[in-house]
Amino acid sequence: MDANEFRANGQAVIELIAQYLETIEQRPVTADVRPGDIRSLLPEHPPTSPESFDDVLSDVNDIVLPGLTHWQHPNFYAFFPGNSSYPSILADLLTAGLGVQGMSWLSSPACTEVETLMLDWMQELLGLPEKYRSTTATGGGVIQGSASEATLSSILAARWRITQGQVNHDGDTSKLIAYCSSQSHSSIEKGLRIAGIGTQNIRVIEHDESFAMNADALETQIIADKNAGLIPFWICSTHGTTSSGAFDPTPAIGLIAQRHQLWLHVDAAMHGIAALAPEFRWVNDGLELADSYCTNPHKWMGVNFDCDLFWTSDRASLLGALSILPEYLRSAAAESGAAIDYRDWQIPLGRRFRSLKLWFAIRTDGTAVFQELIRRHVAITQDLATLVASDPRFDIVAPHTLNLLCLRIKGSSPEEGDQLTDQLIEAANATRDVFFTRTVLNHRSVLRFSIGGRTTEHRHVLSAWGMLQKLA
Amino acid sequence: MDANEFRANGQAVIELIAQYLETIEQRPVTADVRPGDIRSLLPEHPPTSPESFDDVLSDVNDIVLPGLTHWQHPNFYAFFPGNSSYPSILADLLTAGLGVQGMSWLSSPACTEVETLMLDWMQELLGLPEKYRSTTATGGGVIQGSASEATLSSILAARWRITQGQVNHDGDTSKLIAYCSSQSHSSIEKGLRIAGIGTQNIRVIEHDESFAMNADALETQIIADKNAGLIPFWICSTHGTTSSGAFDPTPAIGLIAQRHQLWLHVDAAMHGIAALAPEFRWVNDGLELADSYCTNPHKWMGVNFDCDLFWTSDRASLLGALSILPEYLRSAAAESGAAIDYRDWQIPLGRRFRSLKLWFAIRTDGTAVFQELIRRHVAITQDLATLVASDPRFDIVAPHTLNLLCLRIKGSSPEEGDQLTDQLIEAANATRDVFFTRTVLNHRSVLRFSIGGRTTEHRHVLSAWGMLQKLA
Repeated sequence: MDANEFRANGQAVIELIAQYLETIEQRPVTADVRPGDIRSLLPEHPPTSPESFDDVLSDVNDIVLPGLTHWQHPNFYAFFPGNSSYPSILADLLTAGLGVQGMSWLSSPACTEVETLMLDWMQELLGLPEKYRSTTATGGGVIQGSASEATLSSILAARWRITQGQVNHDGDTSKLIAYCSSQSHSSIEKGLRIAGIGTQNIRVIEHDESFAMNADALETQIIADKNAGLIPFWICSTHGTTSSGAFDPTPAIGLIAQRHQLWLHVDAAMHGIAALAPEFRWVNDGLELADSYCTNPHKWMGVNFDCDLFWTSDRASLLGALSILPEYLRSAAAESGAAIDYRDWQIPLGRRFRSLKLWFAIRTDGTAVFQELIRRHVAITQDLATLVASDPRFDIVAPHTLNLLCLRIKGSSPEEGDQLTDQLIEAANATRDVFFTRTVLNHRSVLRFSIGGRTTEHRHVLSAWGMLQKLA
Repeated sequence: MDANEFRANGQAVIELIAQYLETIEQRPVTADVRPGDIRSLLPEHPPTSPESFDDVLSDVNDIVLPGLTHWQHPNFYAFFPGNSSYPSILADLLTAGLGVQGMSWLSSPACTEVETLMLDWMQELLGLPEKYRSTTATGGGVIQGSASEATLSSILAARWRITQGQVNHDGDTSKLIAYCSSQSHSSIEKGLRIAGIGTQNIRVIEHDESFAMNADALETQIIADKNAGLIPFWICSTHGTTSSGAFDPTPAIGLIAQRHQLWLHVDAAMHGIAALAPEFRWVNDGLELADSYCTNPHKWMGVNFDCDLFWTSDRASLLGALSILPEYLRSAAAESGAAIDYRDWQIPLGRRFRSLKLWFAIRTDGTAVFQELIRRHVAITQDLATLVASDPRFDIVAPHTLNLLCLRIKGSSPEEGDQLTDQLIEAANATRDVFFTRTVLNHRSVLRFSIGGRTTEHRHVLSAWGMLQKLA
């Protein structure tokens, strides 16, 4: 493909995307396929001569699109939203087109500097504590691919700090104890496991009736561990849990972390971004007591995946954990301390120019667009809650302060309620008109109604609720 | 931005990229900036109202482009190449436009199935052992973001296997010993460090005169460690080291790994892809003895970053190390064993539809285009070597079987040679007409002449060599 073919084919892809997103509501949300179906439609072996781009796009239309779960569909209520937006799609295109590496300042200065500025812009827009700004002596932020990687990075920084760097030499994590709640995301256990903190050294703290971590139980456990000669080193406090959207009490947890000198990481992957609307700034309460924080514009803000923002107020520990400087990566700029080399702020070495999508979205859509989205979804969720509460067959089983409603069918017994709820989810998903995911809260089946799609409006949710009532 | 604005703006971005790549040779390779220069040209605070897309593109043209190191420039000889190509740029656009998640089969079936097929296609195109195909009982492959992540994944799989899964519970890595050479990439030490294998437990095996690992020294060290009650568990063999492009002797190392039951990972990030041309299939010699392997289409093959291919013949160990299954991620498809959930094959949870760029590139450019690129660069490098060898002021300091030439100025003493070589690199880079990086081999300064740009032709290299001669 040469430059002129790229121009023509590029227009075709732009048009395909525009049509796909404009007409997405006419598609089922999910695919009518079983494992292996899509592969069976494609050649088992690579082509031996080049094919036309038109043929490729035909296969996209005929085979790929019908085989997708449509995350941009207004009736996608599963998992958490993974929104994109037009400006950020174009930014990702530009990222691919420029094809530069941002592993170090020297490897593409603008890639590093725009990213640093975007993290500082977002610190302002979210109203985060000043200590996270890159212009401070000890803080700063970086774009990571996902909250999983941000969590792992924070664990590694904490591990380095508590051992005063010794872990880099002896790898000894045997006495290090980490704390989370039963509602923490699976990436917490995964990150700890990767870092050599096995399940024996992870304390799963009980939650209260709102599914938030019990701070008293946390401190009791920390003291017990210290008394047993162990070394408590890291706490994860979640702002918006995956199962129910619960908020751990970071103001209280933060004081405990400080009292016992643990690293406090706040995982606000889903809900931290709500702070773009000033009336929801409470989602980040307590953050001045944390050592690190992450939230995902690729969820509610509509900046394409992958875009996780990770800040720390202790960059020295992060760099201590993740810096390695071979001869072939040295540069005068970095050694002077004047430049940031983001490879030392993350797990991988290479990195794309991801800040372009934040820059494009903030400048062309603007904060008001993000605020409208957040406010709309919260309002829809609260209205839905009123409707659900008025149907005696259903229970709302968790607080629903923002955009996630957890509900189940009561049934004549808890067991029957489980069965009916599971059947309801299956029946609803089988229509392919909606897509819900299931979770378990207090050992009971729950339907998660997650309302966060960029195109999801009142009418979609009303119609989905009508379907659930009919099926119940 | 609405769909129609997206159409118009999309065309503008396509045009910007086409012009950028068509005229890239007219730009200096590197930016004339100091740390902070680019940020100082941008507003310190986010805009309070939306701006036009045209204004954003003006800033891209006026501020961002002049602030880049141009990785797609024909005179980029630094690091390793990071090529993009037109089809893969359009695939990345489509990836962004569809905005789906590939964390599990259920979360977008086509995303998983196209990826699995692409790994199998690449197994064929590279002539890799059958045992890595997804259609076998124990093997399979996945796209990772970078070789760093692939390396870390292989370490975690090896750690799991040697401890029979116990490491997930106790995190005990205290006796585990890993092996690499002084020429292994920095991501090896970084990955080991992350996994709780400190420098005390990393054995850096000596290299021979060709900078390849000394296999006898490796086995001697493994035996000594076993005799000391330690547990050797992982070896990294590099096919194409970063400093000099050296190849560790995997056929010999593999036998040692089997004899002592270590996991053998082959890091062929840069040079494994050369096997696309049948006469270079030797780059993967010994792979039938390895447990895992990675190579990067985003380097020499011209499939945009991020696209690292990671295969293992022991997927059970990889899944043992990385699987976690909370309620909200369960699916019947995965539990039946019929579907792959790639989240369990990698560090993060979320993942983009990255296989589209392999699919687009293989189908529209085709293998012949990749082969031509590889053959051209190897031929240019060998011709350059002849020229350098005929200039008595220079030494070629390492074998140069493929596309990396390591040279230095002799000087009247090794110290003077170092000084003159460092000055030469600085003077050449100061012209901004070329970009080289420096390394150190046997404690001496070396200029790496890495020839791998998609647009790099004979004339560029001849001209760059002429410049080096003049400056010398």
